[in-house]
Amino acid sequence: MDGDVPLIDVETAAGAIAEDATVLTSGFGSVGYPKEIPLALADSDRDLRLTIVHSGNVGDEIDVDLVESGAIERRFSYQSTRVARSATNRREIAFSDRNASSIGDEVQYGGMVDADVAVVEAVAVGEGWFVPSTSIGQVPAFVDAADELLIELNHRQPLGLQSIHDIYRPESPPNRTPIPLTGPGDRIGESYVEFDPEKLIGVVETDRPDSTYTFRDPTDDDLAIAANLRSFLSEEMERSAVFDDAIHLQFGVGSLGNALMGELQELDFGDRDVVYYGELIQDGLLDMIDSGRLESASATSMAFTAEGQRRLFDDIDRYAEDIVLRPADVANHPGLIDQFGVVGVNSAIEFDIYGNVNSTHIGGKRMVNGVGGSADYNRNSLISVCALPSKLAGKDISRVVPMTFHVDHTEHDIDVFVTEQGVADVRGCSPVERAERIIENCAHPSFKPKLQSYLDDVRSQSNHIPHDVERAATWHDN
Amino acid sequence: MDGDVPLIDVETAAGAIAEDATVLTSGFGSVGYPKEIPLALADSDRDLRLTIVHSGNVGDEIDVDLVESGAIERRFSYQSTRVARSATNRREIAFSDRNASSIGDEVQYGGMVDADVAVVEAVAVGEGWFVPSTSIGQVPAFVDAADELLIELNHRQPLGLQSIHDIYRPESPPNRTPIPLTGPGDRIGESYVEFDPEKLIGVVETDRPDSTYTFRDPTDDDLAIAANLRSFLSEEMERSAVFDDAIHLQFGVGSLGNALMGELQELDFGDRDVVYYGELIQDGLLDMIDSGRLESASATSMAFTAEGQRRLFDDIDRYAEDIVLRPADVANHPGLIDQFGVVGVNSAIEFDIYGNVNSTHIGGKRMVNGVGGSADYNRNSLISVCALPSKLAGKDISRVVPMTFHVDHTEHDIDVFVTEQGVADVRGCSPVERAERIIENCAHPSFKPKLQSYLDDVRSQSNHIPHDVERAATWHDN
Repeated sequence: MDGDVPLIDVETAAGAIAEDATVLTSGFGSVGYPKEIPLALADSDRDLRLTIVHSGNVGDEIDVDLVESGAIERRFSYQSTRVARSATNRREIAFSDRNASSIGDEVQYGGMVDADVAVVEAVAVGEGWFVPSTSIGQVPAFVDAADELLIELNHRQPLGLQSIHDIYRPESPPNRTPIPLTGPGDRIGESYVEFDPEKLIGVVETDRPDSTYTFRDPTDDDLAIAANLRSFLSEEMERSAVFDDAIHLQFGVGSLGNALMGELQELDFGDRDVVYYGELIQDGLLDMIDSGRLESASATSMAFTAEGQRRLFDDIDRYAEDIVLRPADVANHPGLIDQFGVVGVNSAIEFDIYGNVNSTHIGGKRMVNGVGGSADYNRNSLISVCALPSKLAGKDISRVVPMTFHVDHTEHDIDVFVTEQGVADVRGCSPVERAERIIENCAHPSFKPKLQSYLDDVRSQSNHIPHDVERAATWHDN
Repeated sequence: MDGDVPLIDVETAAGAIAEDATVLTSGFGSVGYPKEIPLALADSDRDLRLTIVHSGNVGDEIDVDLVESGAIERRFSYQSTRVARSATNRREIAFSDRNASSIGDEVQYGGMVDADVAVVEAVAVGEGWFVPSTSIGQVPAFVDAADELLIELNHRQPLGLQSIHDIYRPESPPNRTPIPLTGPGDRIGESYVEFDPEKLIGVVETDRPDSTYTFRDPTDDDLAIAANLRSFLSEEMERSAVFDDAIHLQFGVGSLGNALMGELQELDFGDRDVVYYGELIQDGLLDMIDSGRLESASATSMAFTAEGQRRLFDDIDRYAEDIVLRPADVANHPGLIDQFGVVGVNSAIEFDIYGNVNSTHIGGKRMVNGVGGSADYNRNSLISVCALPSKLAGKDISRVVPMTFHVDHTEHDIDVFVTEQGVADVRGCSPVERAERIIENCAHPSFKPKLQSYLDDVRSQSNHIPHDVERAATWHDN
């Protein structure tokens, strides 16, 4: 660390944040977020009314402690704890759910907030630069947008993380030039984030560990979904010349996503390159790298188990040959997802018979986590796959419904639906044809007759998308 | 025209199309579509079961005559006549509504159809090349995707159109490189589309005119919306340094869009460049070019009145200095809309109090036209504006509703709502805050109390997005 860097204690750092400040934090995939300053803010007896902005989920120091302290008045854009979710649903915190790819631009140029201070975690810091820790997210945009900067230098995180970072800063619109990335494994930037040294209030040292993920062991449903997905991918690689030399994949985060990544090993990719161009790297991908089956993996953060994180940290230089972490405005960039012809695989809460997908609000009302980067991939992938179990585990609730009452991904977005029951490839289908395939191939047998009866009844209408909204509403009530 | 080009009569051309063929046609903005071959197909007594694919709307020869003949079994992706709309809603034609930016890739690489023959209109044709006429759309992708090619050489269209075309072909994924466009006025391609001469069945000559648009004169509501939009843009240019040197605008097509473009002349842009980066050029933009107020205009087609088209044709070389027509996968490209920091202004059927927008299906059921390129701009613009009158002209129907039952643009997409009543800038707002602003600033006075009462009643719920779906459904029934 450069000798000129002003070390300060955490109380001084927290005290430098105004009571009604807009605070932009690092953190994505529940890692790489600041920990000490949020805890000090949570412990403060000041009358805080903060706006907290981050581009992906953060750990308990923000998502539980700071939330419970009542210090947050407004928040963007993802949460993943019971405490935070509950505060959002009670509307004690004003929450706005943004897309991971564009929240940086919205903050820096789009007039979404008036950005006061960025608070970021780093593994190294010097005069006008720092090396981010375990995630990048929208940190570079946040640092440029904010008037001031606070850095948490986390000694628990290995300095070797710098070898997996590739920080490229797109120019400001309207003179932004195309991002010069020609492959997910390319490096086009630096291992550090630059900042205006005048903005730096100070650096707080810590050795608090990141949160890590706990994933369930793959269930029978997970394995059946993985097998159905493999069979779809296998046919698709056979069908389309676009995948002859390489296939670029993305998987949404979670236990299912992790299981799908892990089970991909079973698929015969032939001699084509397998490349990951996604938002998050999970344990399953390390297995693919170790077996030499994955060419490279690009993401903006990692969602590892404790064991996965240890594997990476213990062998970071080797993994850095294949793994690149980028800012979210590059990793999730619509134009780049398009360039690489990504096959995106994302889960959701539910989808409806016509192919609309709800990934955020139960019954259209109760927020779960947030849209994250799922819309970036669902909208821009060459082939978008929505994969989930056909019913809620252990409950009598179908995840295939007549009508979703919150839509995060429209009928124009998704090409293929996969459940443990089968695959509904709806490309080129009209809405009613989609409904037929989705009910036939994806619905759980215990709900299939009821869904079929809905479709049979409404199709007497002379409408492009026949619906009985009141009846569809009672489905959710039951 | 090259002497080797095989001229054929229209019956031979139509006869070369198999009864169950998938036919990819040119046409966008109801211009530049093939006319003679569709009419010959409509007149044929063969048992045709065609799949017709185009990237934007086409004229009556397809949208009325061919539809009425019963020759179309399946169709993508936009329609704009009563006849076509009715066939779609009766589900006599299987219709799938796709985004204008990506339907080319979906056809060429995405497995949406098995493309048999492309039928395109041109103003010049030679060995392995043709010059498109009044629109580009996804023609280059369609020509590459199809096994065979038929060309209609339209002598009615001026050859000078070649001077406004800039045909750039993105490579195939996954080795697609960034599109090297650094400004909307740039030229990065050729004035012609290349094709494999082996594909060419023949060339049919015609002098049938294009359809042109008829726009109503601006209504009082149109003018009030324009004034509210100007006042928003004016404040935004004051607020944000990102617009200091230039502002890039896009407007959706239609009478309102045309009025908004025309009324933009009244806005004081200071000394910044005004640039149009959109999908369609309308008459209003010619006024801006004539007055020297518009730096350049990029689009994939034009939606002119007969008078507007004559103005362009009479002075095409002068207009070609400022107007560029591009393929829709460039004009509507998510990454380019992002690069230029576009302010996109699009209309819709209705929006709901939480900011979801329905631009295609009345009551969630009855298809009007199609999503077109609106989702490309709404999702990727730096600032997305949804502008429409607060109620249906001359009817007691609010266009601000409690809940839309078809969502084309999600709550994550739109930043600002504008009606003749006012402006609701919902950036950074939670769903309930959005509802407050939308009801207060955008709803028509005759519906405001009812919308407010809905919000007042549901907000007792402990939900992030409080809703009473059954009550929201009865709103549409009434």
